Amino acid sequence: MRETDLIRMIRGFAQQLPGRTGLIQGVGDDCAVLRPRPNEDLVFTTDFVIEDRHFTTDTHTAGDVGHKALARSLSDLAAMGAEPVFCLVSLAFPQKLTQHWLRGFYKSLMDLAGRYKIALAGGDLARSERITVDVMCCGRTARGRAMLRSTARPGDSICVTGELGGAAAGLAVMRGANWRRQKRPQPRIEAGLKLRTIATAGMDLSDGLSLDLYRLCEESKCGATLDGRLPIAKGASLEQALHGGEDYELLFTVAPQLRIPKKIAGLPVTRIGAITNTPRKITLAGEPLRPLGFDHFR
Amino acid sequence: MRETDLIRMIRGFAQQLPGRTGLIQGVGDDCAVLRPRPNEDLVFTTDFVIEDRHFTTDTHTAGDVGHKALARSLSDLAAMGAEPVFCLVSLAFPQKLTQHWLRGFYKSLMDLAGRYKIALAGGDLARSERITVDVMCCGRTARGRAMLRSTARPGDSICVTGELGGAAAGLAVMRGANWRRQKRPQPRIEAGLKLRTIATAGMDLSDGLSLDLYRLCEESKCGATLDGRLPIAKGASLEQALHGGEDYELLFTVAPQLRIPKKIAGLPVTRIGAITNTPRKITLAGEPLRPLGFDHFR
Repeated sequence: MRETDLIRMIRGFAQQLPGRTGLIQGVGDDCAVLRPRPNEDLVFTTDFVIEDRHFTTDTHTAGDVGHKALARSLSDLAAMGAEPVFCLVSLAFPQKLTQHWLRGFYKSLMDLAGRYKIALAGGDLARSERITVDVMCCGRTARGRAMLRSTARPGDSICVTGELGGAAAGLAVMRGANWRRQKRPQPRIEAGLKLRTIATAGMDLSDGLSLDLYRLCEESKCGATLDGRLPIAKGASLEQALHGGEDYELLFTVAPQLRIPKKIAGLPVTRIGAITNTPRKITLAGEPLRPLGFDHFR
Repeated sequence: MRETDLIRMIRGFAQQLPGRTGLIQGVGDDCAVLRPRPNEDLVFTTDFVIEDRHFTTDTHTAGDVGHKALARSLSDLAAMGAEPVFCLVSLAFPQKLTQHWLRGFYKSLMDLAGRYKIALAGGDLARSERITVDVMCCGRTARGRAMLRSTARPGDSICVTGELGGAAAGLAVMRGANWRRQKRPQPRIEAGLKLRTIATAGMDLSDGLSLDLYRLCEESKCGATLDGRLPIAKGASLEQALHGGEDYELLFTVAPQLRIPKKIAGLPVTRIGAITNTPRKITLAGEPLRPLGFDHFR
């Protein structure tokens, strides 16, 4: 497949999307062009998905890879309480990769993009030995309303959406509902949008609760105490719920005077503890909890 | 080097930059947050630089790679006539890569970023077998003033900045001024900003004049006739000037009634031909010119 043919295929997919995003120029020029709306902030994130690190071609279809590549970045938008606007998709791949694989990858990525009405606005293409995807996503929030990690306050309740440990449990057994969850994570966009009105701070759970909570505490210059009642996914262990990555649920804090809803955007919400004023000290049922989540360089 | 140590190093570099970009949140949260200014459009581009495709560790230092990774994306901003605002840097690399290399990479990238006062606002880190960099750049233009590929008109003059073929000639001999130019391309940001007032269309020359001009004609639904007087770099051949990539000069069109300046932002400007109304047909001194520039998949 020549570069021009692949670009033609990508343009075909890109044109399927609705044009209500504010994009003036999409695929086909040196840059995409966006006209911002009045009184909005824009948020930006980028995430790698790399063969033999984040997936293998034996265990993941082209569709799994396309879905996951976009879902990882969308989850970061959810973590800011942002509405998705557009994405840039950079893809490097070996010569032997088939047209069938490429079509499956883009089709699945565009299915997920279509669900959130976001545009594929550009990207880059290159050759490499391993399939390497880097997806940049842009989202929007009302001015000053992005949900940050650095704004949790002592006394806030700590909550999570959904269930924890499922993705890690799925990776361990490679079958069943948890395995499907691991391969096709669902970004919590709708929940993120609703959280903006009640959360003091928030982030997504990509590297495991213990490490991600540590990061939130570090940014907010506070500590946390967990009471031990975690929403553990069926088939997952406490270890997997604490330290397993890729659940892509939302971790957020709520001011003590506010009532915590039982559900947000159809997802169960669980209060798992409270923010304290002892910087970076995290305890679980009274015992110190070390940040053991996923370090990308171990 | 642990991920947290590397992030600390990157944050140190990121904080050296001036904060006049409109960024509310940089490295450290799930997303970077930008507050757009009134009456501006934002432009976005992303470019890979991959070991053994775009460089080798034998021929390019860490500083060369960091410079080139940002320069490629900045050149796309220049092509839109945009002022650089911020970048996201995604870096995947093998375990054996030294801290010395990583420091050299980021230092050089930040030196170039500092020259254009742009912020390092985030990115991603991962492991991979080959060093893989993907740099996303955001720039701004006054509303509706981005320089596009699709707006050239029959009768317009076709012009280029600087000299052509130098990067290809440098790659062939791997020494001298052309080799330095190949390794440390200079994005034509200042020229791009000045071109907004006189150019009808424009793009950067990354894959060679013949292929890039073909793309401009395709987007503008027109053709081109070149008169054969090209500004060939010293030491380069006509072939290298026509089909060699990575010069990162600007290709632009000017309405026939306008005077073409001899220099723009200190760079010589050469009129090389004119736009015609025969779609995608390009001639050089009367003979058909085929688009033979760099196809990333050959």
